[in-house]
Parts: sequence; C-alpha cells; structure tokens
Amino acid sequence: MSKTEWRVGVAGLGTVGGGLLNFLSDRAGFAPAGGKAVVTGVSARSRSRPRPFDISNLPWFDDPVELAKSPDIDIFVELIGGSDGPAKAAVEAALNVGKPVVTANKALIAEHGAELAALAESKGVPLLFEAAVMGGTPAVKMLREAMVGDDVKSVAGILNGTCNYILSEMDSSGRSFADVLSEAQRLGYAEADPTMDVGGFDAAHKISILAALAFGCAPNYAAAEIEGIDQVALLDIQLAKDLGYKIKLIASANRSDEGVLVRVHPTLVAQSHPLAQAGGALNALFIEGTRIGRIFIQGPGAGSGPTAAAVAADIADVMTAANRPVFQAPATSLTPFTPVDPARNLSRAYLRFLVKDEPGVIAAVSETLAEAGVSIESFLQKPVENAEGVPIVLTTHAVAESVLTAAIDRIANLSVVLERPRLLRIARI
Amino acid sequence: MSKTEWRVGVAGLGTVGGGLLNFLSDRAGFAPAGGKAVVTGVSARSRSRPRPFDISNLPWFDDPVELAKSPDIDIFVELIGGSDGPAKAAVEAALNVGKPVVTANKALIAEHGAELAALAESKGVPLLFEAAVMGGTPAVKMLREAMVGDDVKSVAGILNGTCNYILSEMDSSGRSFADVLSEAQRLGYAEADPTMDVGGFDAAHKISILAALAFGCAPNYAAAEIEGIDQVALLDIQLAKDLGYKIKLIASANRSDEGVLVRVHPTLVAQSHPLAQAGGALNALFIEGTRIGRIFIQGPGAGSGPTAAAVAADIADVMTAANRPVFQAPATSLTPFTPVDPARNLSRAYLRFLVKDEPGVIAAVSETLAEAGVSIESFLQKPVENAEGVPIVLTTHAVAESVLTAAIDRIANLSVVLERPRLLRIARI
Repeated sequence: MSKTEWRVGVAGLGTVGGGLLNFLSDRAGFAPAGGKAVVTGVSARSRSRPRPFDISNLPWFDDPVELAKSPDIDIFVELIGGSDGPAKAAVEAALNVGKPVVTANKALIAEHGAELAALAESKGVPLLFEAAVMGGTPAVKMLREAMVGDDVKSVAGILNGTCNYILSEMDSSGRSFADVLSEAQRLGYAEADPTMDVGGFDAAHKISILAALAFGCAPNYAAAEIEGIDQVALLDIQLAKDLGYKIKLIASANRSDEGVLVRVHPTLVAQSHPLAQAGGALNALFIEGTRIGRIFIQGPGAGSGPTAAAVAADIADVMTAANRPVFQAPATSLTPFTPVDPARNLSRAYLRFLVKDEPGVIAAVSETLAEAGVSIESFLQKPVENAEGVPIVLTTHAVAESVLTAAIDRIANLSVVLERPRLLRIARI
Repeated sequence: MSKTEWRVGVAGLGTVGGGLLNFLSDRAGFAPAGGKAVVTGVSARSRSRPRPFDISNLPWFDDPVELAKSPDIDIFVELIGGSDGPAKAAVEAALNVGKPVVTANKALIAEHGAELAALAESKGVPLLFEAAVMGGTPAVKMLREAMVGDDVKSVAGILNGTCNYILSEMDSSGRSFADVLSEAQRLGYAEADPTMDVGGFDAAHKISILAALAFGCAPNYAAAEIEGIDQVALLDIQLAKDLGYKIKLIASANRSDEGVLVRVHPTLVAQSHPLAQAGGALNALFIEGTRIGRIFIQGPGAGSGPTAAAVAADIADVMTAANRPVFQAPATSLTPFTPVDPARNLSRAYLRFLVKDEPGVIAAVSETLAEAGVSIESFLQKPVENAEGVPIVLTTHAVAESVLTAAIDRIANLSVVLERPRLLRIARI
C-alpha cells in the first residue's frame, strides 16, 4: 500500500487494450488506492500495425512472456485471448514470478481457471478477470465478493451480446438468421468467423466461470451443454411471440443436491420477464441466493470502453492488496464439480412440428406425446403462407429431457410429420 | 491473512442482527478468506427481551461502546441504527482503537460519513456499509469498486422498499395512501412511525451515500432535496397511468459541471422502463458512467436474510485486509460537494389542476403557462365521478424548476382554479 507507483504491462493491443491505454492516459492520476498506475511495457503480435492510439513512447516486447516476467512491471494485464498458446504461457510466467495478473480472457479462465488459481494462490498474488464476463457489468465481483454471505442456487442470463443483437434484430425486423448475421459482420458486431459467438461457446465459457464463482467449484467448461443460435428459425421467433415469449440465448448454471448443471441454449422467455426485455447487445443476469433472493444485473457486455473500465477496476483491486481466493473458496478446497445429466433435467418445452395438412394429424401427434408421458400445456396452429406443410406448435408441462427426446424420436417417425420436430426450452427463471 | 479466527462483536440484535447470528451459526465454517468468523460478544438495549434466536452462550455487553473497544473482538458490527447516540459513539470507539467496522446504518454514514472515513483511514482500518443501501443488493460495492475505472455521471433508482410497496399497492388495488399505509403497518412492512420511509428521508440517506461513492465527494445529506410520497394522491397514480407512466419514489444524484444535485421525489416513470416494472418492495438502481454506459441492478432492499448477507460479505471483505479508501477517494482528498440549486434544474413535469367546469378554463390555464414560458407536451382531461371540480392534467417539455414554480403560483391565483396545482416530475432516466 505504500507503493506510490504501479507499473503495468499490457499484452494484447486490440480494442480492449487500446481502451485501457486511453483510459490510463486520460486519467493520468489513476490512483484509486493511493498508488498511481503507469504503463511501462506493451506487447502485441505486430508493433507496426496501424492503431488509433500511440504506443511509440511505450517500451515494446515482442514476446508477451518476456513482458510478463519483466522486472519493470508490477502488474501483468493479459488481453491476448485464446485458451492456450501465448496467453496461457504469459499468464503462467507472470504468476510464476509472483506478479499479479489481470485478464479479460474467458476461454483461459473457463478452461484452465482452477490450475491458474492454484498457481496464483501458491504465489500469494491475485488473478482477476472481471472483464471476462459481461464486460463492464461487474458480475464477477458480485458473485465472488458480494454473494459470499449467501448460498447461490442458480445464475442465468444473457452473456453474449452478438447473439442477443442477432436475435433482437430477427425479432424486430423479421429477417432470417443468415441475413442478420451478415449485416452484423459488416457492421463489426460479429466476427468474420462467428462460431465462438453464434455457436454458444463464448456464453459457455462465461457461464462456466460464473458457476465456479457462484458455487465454489472449479470451472468445468467441458461439462457445459452447449447449443447456439445458428438453428433458430425466424418462424420459431414469430410463433414464440404469438405464445407470449421471446427467444433468447440463455446461459444458466443450477446447483441441486445432484450436482451442477451448466447449459447454454436458445430459450423461450416470457415477454414480461426482464431477460426478454434486455434487447440489442445488452447482457443481463439473474443471481438467486438462498438468503438474498433474486438479484438482477444488466449492462453492456462488450465494447472497448466498458471492458477497459472493468480491467481498470481489477488493476485498482490489485492495488488494495486484498488477499482473497480466486474463486470464492481457496483453490485447494474448491468443491468438486459434479455434473448433472441434462437428460434428467426437467424443463417446459416448446415443440414445433411441420405436418401434412390432413385430418387426424393433431390426434396422431398428441396421442404419441401422451403415450410417451409428455403433458401438453398449450397448443397453437396458424396458417403460414407458402409453407411446405402446416406448422403446429405446442408447449409442454415440465418433463424430463430424456422423456421429451424419446417422444420427439417417435413423432419424427410418424408419416404425417415432414421434418424432425424442433425443440426449444422454456425458461424456468 | 494468517489469522485463523476473526472474533466478531455485534451491537444491535434486531432483525438484521438476528439474521447475522443465524447465518454465522448455520455456516459455522464461514471462512471466505481463510480465517473463520466467530461471534465473541453481543450488545443490545435489553438482554432479556424475547428473541427468535439464542444469545445465552454469547458474552453480553450492556454498553455497545465497551463491546466496540473490547480486546475480545477483531471486527465491530454496528446494527443499532440512528445517526447519532450509541451507534456513533460505538463506531467511533471501535475505529479509535483500530478495529474494522461493518455497519448497516445509512443515517450514520450519510450524516457523518466523511469524518468517520477520515478516522478509519487515519487508523488504517476499513469502514464498510454495504447493508446500508439496497440491503443484499451490492450497490455500494459496485460504485466503490467496480466503477473506479469510469467517471459516473448519475445514479437514480428506487431505494426505499416500503414506499415502493405502498405505491405499487395503491396502483394495483386502487386504494388510498392512508389505507395502504395502515395495512403495511399491520403487516409489519412499515414502521409505527413511518416518517423516515414515507417522508423520503431514508431514501435521501441512501442516495447521499451513493452520490459520495459515485462522485468521490463527501456525503452531504443536508444538501439533498427531499419530497416523500405522503402527498401522492390515488388520482395522480390513475391519471399518470392514463398517460403511460407509473409513479415511483425516485432517488437520484447527478453530476454536472455546475456541481451535484441529490434529490428524492415522487416521479413519473414510463411504464416500459425497468424502474417502473420494479414492483412490490424491490429496490432498483441505474448507474450511468462515461465509459461503461448504463448498468441496472435490482434486488431486495431490506429484510433479515438479504441485509445479513450483505453484512457477512462486508465481514469477508475485512478478512481480505484490502486497503481501500472508504469513499472511492481517500477521505483527505474527496472532491468538495458543490450543490446545484434545484430551481435551475430542468425537468419535464406533470401538472394536475382541479378547475371549475366552465368554458374558457383550459384557455386560461394554457395562456398562463405560455406567458410564463412553459411549453405543453400533452394534455388530458377525463371525467371523474363525484369530483368537486374537473381535473385536468398536462405534461410539459423540459423547463427550469424556477420557471415552473412561478407558473404554478400564477395559475393557483386564477379564479377558475380550485386548489393549488399538483406538480410531479417526469423521469429523465
């Protein structure tokens, strides 16, 4: 605390790195806990690449690992990205020489968080990653610090702004997934290779981190069940709307006596629910605790300004010299993560069938569902123009996924059914 | 950090104190940062008063000041309440002997926060008060820690659950303020003397604290402009609804080049706005930062469980030995609080007049407004049964409060106007 200056090394000079350099130069006196933050080293893939900010006066390192180990820095900020490779090597190098690390890297923390936490704690230095989840919206700090006086039962929300933007645009403009995605790519809202976002993998990284913080277990990205939005049809968005729902990519983690279930999938959320109303690229999260009840938090999930602000807040946290476990409980005593078989999970479901327009079809479908033990809650049939067949939609009462899947298999084989039925879950939140 | 046990003294054994004792006995191993929290002393007004929890095995102190100074405690938790008297004396006593303090006392922090922060920082010990604002919803931590990497422009929200409950009930049941208040008192949702809540003073304490955290200034409760909900008529709730609004008690703090404006008043909020949808006893807050943009947080603002969880989180923070200023900036360097004259503030307004049912009335009112420089945005006249006169309602474009007040004075003197016009602000949020 008597430190008057904190020398910061920044590896990775993309939008977040640029935002951080801008922030630290705008706020030259940034000294939230007494000492002042000063950038004393930077590293990126190319020194000469044109950037909207000036790095000519900053000591340059070709190798982020050298920057991480440099005696000229007190805090290593990793903004390279990727679960392995140079990001992991540099973070390990910094921790190994006892330097605090701040990172925005969700893949790294979701896939290697437990081992990195153990390393950080063995060296007695912090490893902070607020910017990895929800950008400038402090979900990590809330779960790690504010919820320690409670037992969290579930976290659920919208963690990928790109998907939320695409689904919101499909809903409001009536355009297809492919159309909206190409537009988002032109506007820079989606990557050239959008797989991480639209495939649900980015949201799965983030919810894996939140689950670890919420439940005091190690992050277990491998156990996450992941479904993206690339198969969400405009027709389903429109039919869901008729039933009073919006389709959102919901990432959720639930703890029960059986263990932990971490999932990402497109989900029907009642239109009046705050998560349904989080439009555009917003991120939003519900946290449910035994004592506190339900807390809702919403804000921008990405962008240079918000994400850099989160990194700056972590730098401030390093300055306070707080001695706190990386994941709520010390790495050596994290609760084992017991995955729950999703097939045993109960959900209400939305099912959409494309059927031949002939008598007896509804009876055939509903009898098959009844035989399989699936109970229907509501039913909708609407004329759709130029359709190959007639879409019928129903929602079910809560049913085990295994029962539902078996029922869908049987219905898919009915001669009156023209394609494999589409299944979407309905939010319990 | 090598501490294996943190001995906690708890002064004040009401609902929050009971919740905390229950939590610490349920979670006997509560050791969020390595050391275990153990209650080693309690104090309250009466030892023998019947309580739903057992204190017979805990060392008793008649005087909270003696508990605060006791060599048998490491952390002093103040849950007595009140801005002065024993609460202040005990907190000062603990800080003076270098003991960390955790308090849920909003009046104390709002009215004496700066001097207590200076004392705590001079002794190098934390003074934490998460439970003082929004109960279990971590608004304090968000502003103090997560927003340090940003410049906050405004905070605004619903900070008093009792008022929110009363307004929500008036809205949904069509009953008067007095009716709903007596019911809330019977149900224990409102105090026997409800002045602190319904008069807006509790919300003003809370927003004064949030303003200090947001803007890095000392809390200045004396500068808050306060209007409660005791004058909110059912008629206004109904007319506001016709115009697309709900009436909420909004506490807000805004920073501009001119200074800081801290206000609490009943406010019209568009029905689609998240603050309008925070019903029942919920608390909700918007934080707007230059870089991060808008963050929204919502949760329970009171109650034994949530508030005790917030106190427990603060105890955990003490254990981390974080060295952080009490109010974002060190007490010695807090920005001076420059209050802005509310009369210069621009607001859109809702005005309700009770007028004689005769020709030319609307012309008289609207001419007077035009002469005063108030521009009308919308206008509503509805027949109301058994009314003494005819209510007419209008909303204005943004106008300085001084201009508005002058216009109201002139209209109140018109012979066709039967009572002083009712003014409510329309939220800018």
